[in-house]
Amino acid sequence: MTIIDLNCDMGESFGAYTSGMDDQVMQHITSANIACGFHAGDPMVMHKTVKLAVENHVGIGAHPGYPDLLGFGRRNMACTPNEIRQYIIYQIGALNAFCKVHNTRMTHVKPHGALYLAAVEEESTARAIATGIMDLDPGLSFVALAGKKGETMRRMGEELGLKVVYEAFPDRAYTPDGTLVPRSQPNAVILDPDKVARRALDMAKGFVIAVDGTQIQLEAQTLCVHGDNPAAINLVKTIRQVLGKNNIDVKSMGESQ
Amino acid sequence: MTIIDLNCDMGESFGAYTSGMDDQVMQHITSANIACGFHAGDPMVMHKTVKLAVENHVGIGAHPGYPDLLGFGRRNMACTPNEIRQYIIYQIGALNAFCKVHNTRMTHVKPHGALYLAAVEEESTARAIATGIMDLDPGLSFVALAGKKGETMRRMGEELGLKVVYEAFPDRAYTPDGTLVPRSQPNAVILDPDKVARRALDMAKGFVIAVDGTQIQLEAQTLCVHGDNPAAINLVKTIRQVLGKNNIDVKSMGESQ
Amino acid sequence: MTIIDLNCDMGESFGAYTSGMDDQVMQHITSANIACGFHAGDPMVMHKTVKLAVENHVGIGAHPGYPDLLGFGRRNMACTPNEIRQYIIYQIGALNAFCKVHNTRMTHVKPHGALYLAAVEEESTARAIATGIMDLDPGLSFVALAGKKGETMRRMGEELGLKVVYEAFPDRAYTPDGTLVPRSQPNAVILDPDKVARRALDMAKGFVIAVDGTQIQLEAQTLCVHGDNPAAINLVKTIRQVLGKNNIDVKSMGESQ
Amino acid sequence: MTIIDLNCDMGESFGAYTSGMDDQVMQHITSANIACGFHAGDPMVMHKTVKLAVENHVGIGAHPGYPDLLGFGRRNMACTPNEIRQYIIYQIGALNAFCKVHNTRMTHVKPHGALYLAAVEEESTARAIATGIMDLDPGLSFVALAGKKGETMRRMGEELGLKVVYEAFPDRAYTPDGTLVPRSQPNAVILDPDKVARRALDMAKGFVIAVDGTQIQLEAQTLCVHGDNPAAINLVKTIRQVLGKNNIDVKSMGESQ
Repeated sequence: MTIIDLNCDMGESFGAYTSGMDDQVMQHITSANIACGFHAGDPMVMHKTVKLAVENHVGIGAHPGYPDLLGFGRRNMACTPNEIRQYIIYQIGALNAFCKVHNTRMTHVKPHGALYLAAVEEESTARAIATGIMDLDPGLSFVALAGKKGETMRRMGEELGLKVVYEAFPDRAYTPDGTLVPRSQPNAVILDPDKVARRALDMAKGFVIAVDGTQIQLEAQTLCVHGDNPAAINLVKTIRQVLGKNNIDVKSMGESQ
Repeated sequence: MTIIDLNCDMGESFGAYTSGMDDQVMQHITSANIACGFHAGDPMVMHKTVKLAVENHVGIGAHPGYPDLLGFGRRNMACTPNEIRQYIIYQIGALNAFCKVHNTRMTHVKPHGALYLAAVEEESTARAIATGIMDLDPGLSFVALAGKKGETMRRMGEELGLKVVYEAFPDRAYTPDGTLVPRSQPNAVILDPDKVARRALDMAKGFVIAVDGTQIQLEAQTLCVHGDNPAAINLVKTIRQVLGKNNIDVKSMGESQ
Repeated sequence: MTIIDLNCDMGESFGAYTSGMDDQVMQHITSANIACGFHAGDPMVMHKTVKLAVENHVGIGAHPGYPDLLGFGRRNMACTPNEIRQYIIYQIGALNAFCKVHNTRMTHVKPHGALYLAAVEEESTARAIATGIMDLDPGLSFVALAGKKGETMRRMGEELGLKVVYEAFPDRAYTPDGTLVPRSQPNAVILDPDKVARRALDMAKGFVIAVDGTQIQLEAQTLCVHGDNPAAINLVKTIRQVLGKNNIDVKSMGESQ
Repeated sequence: MTIIDLNCDMGESFGAYTSGMDDQVMQHITSANIACGFHAGDPMVMHKTVKLAVENHVGIGAHPGYPDLLGFGRRNMACTPNEIRQYIIYQIGALNAFCKVHNTRMTHVKPHGALYLAAVEEESTARAIATGIMDLDPGLSFVALAGKKGETMRRMGEELGLKVVYEAFPDRAYTPDGTLVPRSQPNAVILDPDKVARRALDMAKGFVIAVDGTQIQLEAQTLCVHGDNPAAINLVKTIRQVLGKNNIDVKSMGESQ
């Protein structure tokens, strides 16, 4: 049976500020990437989000970012590889404490925003993240971009001996060579729930229809979904239903290991 | 043989800012209370400080504080008990990651500055801290103020089942009822190294000479020393020498458990 | 003709986080208290909010708070009077730059959250805030609590020579001695828009009906309203309509000076 | 008579952390670039530093940086030009408040660290900074890199109508085309006080001896000096003496306008 994981960034509220509809989206996903207090999240939010994930039998991963709350971790920062490595260790450690308190184990690490993009672009950043994970817990999976563009990021994880989980984006257009169409281009993001769900199903089966209509191979074990607004929640529900109806086994990357 | 621990706050540098002469003081103490990034410290500093402690066979404890870098955690903040509890879990977890990376185990938790003072004054704060420690790891010792004034803080830890380590201050004057003379009063702090070392020896033996000259009982398993400046380093050396010459076994609270 | 000002806290978004429905509430108020980056707000938000206020002919005031973004400035912090004074100067200065860029002048200062409450409770805090304002610009009005409880706060401003603007809360219950009923008590907050608007009208006329039904005097030149959610927006509209129908001249405290 | 300004970064302490020997260096310089709370500095430090500058008749400039206290503003951050522009306005405004409190006027703005370097490299960043200054106060001078490499930065300021003050570095080696030798290369930094003072004198006269021994033209109105340690203080004293003995009029860029 074909297996796929649905992951979503969670716990990105901070203090009095709320971000995301975590309560609702948590019912439909299988892996939660939880912010660790650098780009978003705080101890109260982390406690609550880990609890929510446990209650919903959702796998927990750390979602570490650059130390840039003001920019929500979306701005590249020229940190050294050693800084990134230690930031990764700190953030995973902090989230791990809440996992321990809730008698659960973390399954994976997915870098956030600009840190993820830097890991895609720069070997040194990808290696720094993977090394930080390895330093702390070689059993954690490393979520990295599927497709051609993600090769460096995935290779760094694999060379270090981490289990790398390939991630695809059902709501994003892909070029014929398996690269995400940049957000700056029209039609980079697909909004229609039925289309996105159909693409999620394709991805679960190992392929995607590129912007030129060709079917290309795309190996992915997890699909990234969003939970920011009612439309996003509805989209996740639709994806889950379509996958279910087509006998795809939707489960946490932690369980399918 | 009489046993005593010498603890010192460490790892309180931040980014480009240096605080304390950690390299030097680490050679003379047996327990390091390492800042966790809230009132001071950052991932790079924590990594380096844990490494330094391990190299010097010094026991490692978390030194969590209020989230107030600007005030160095020295200003009281009206956090709720639940906020404090989660802040404690987050900070211990972050430091614990660096311990794991360096193949060592944390031995204790000592709250910092205004958080320590709040735990002395308020049962709710002491309980929040102790609960956070208990949530995460019941094997961690809780460092709490020795003497009459520290009763509430110690009781909260003991009631929850934590091992509480009583802390005394050899460079501080005590009243006849075993309370620290407030810093606002003259002679609250003793500067003469020989006098302070003599007091450390007394404390290791279970008593202290109060400001009125009477000898009072004071149960303490750890003595707090400082490493901010050359005079402080010299003071720690003197204490260590005097304790050694008098057959006091100076060792980490972790080892004497 | 009777004059009253309607003030609302604005610009409390931060980075990717949105707080408040500023675009909508700005159309109905006469004074905006704009966050300055300590408890909330950031340079981009401040720029945008000052622009919005200017476009809507709304008077601009600084809304300085404690340096506690995580607590949204709602937690008391034991800052020294001198720290508070310099924090006030810094925050007013930062906001003033955006006023200058938009060719307008700030009219007032209203402390935020826990800082406001501390100014009500402690003479030293009220004086520190008023001194900071006075240091920088003696022409700025100081918004302080109306009624008995606000006497200290108002007196500190007046003694220093500031114009003090008395603030009342139409959606809050008052005791017969002119003190706000604490939020911890039932019925402390009045939700019915018609009742609140009626109270706003009473307040504009110089009195309020206390919880025991007695009519008490309450001198106020500004009324605090909120803009967090659709119900709050509706409430502000209702207040504005009722005041208008009853020939109350609703205008900025800056204009009525 | 030849005129030159000596500028130094000041007010880079933060909370309990001290950076720089401001008290001492302030006696020997003519312009202080004061940190504004983003990469370093805080309201207490800014108050104190402005006061110190006024007492020593030293011209005051803002020294705005990226919002990265952890990295001391030394790491490039991918902020948008509009973010940079608003960050500049905020920081100048905050410092300006302390100038107003101390009855003085700011003379200039010199971006800090990675922001300065980004302005050298990228037209968009240089323009964003210059636009922010222009928005707020067209009378402020913009300190920009002298020599070939600084052309873009200076042109952006000049095109917008700002007075641009050209800055040279007496302790840094220059290539024959008037570019700073990168710090990564040996001999990039000159340590010998007599040599550095000699170079300062050359620079005041409009030239510098490049690494290949050729004398090249270098137009500069201000020279950057440091005040981090006793050797740096001694260096500044030597520069000042040598300039004085050679009839160079050392005065603030504000006075020579």
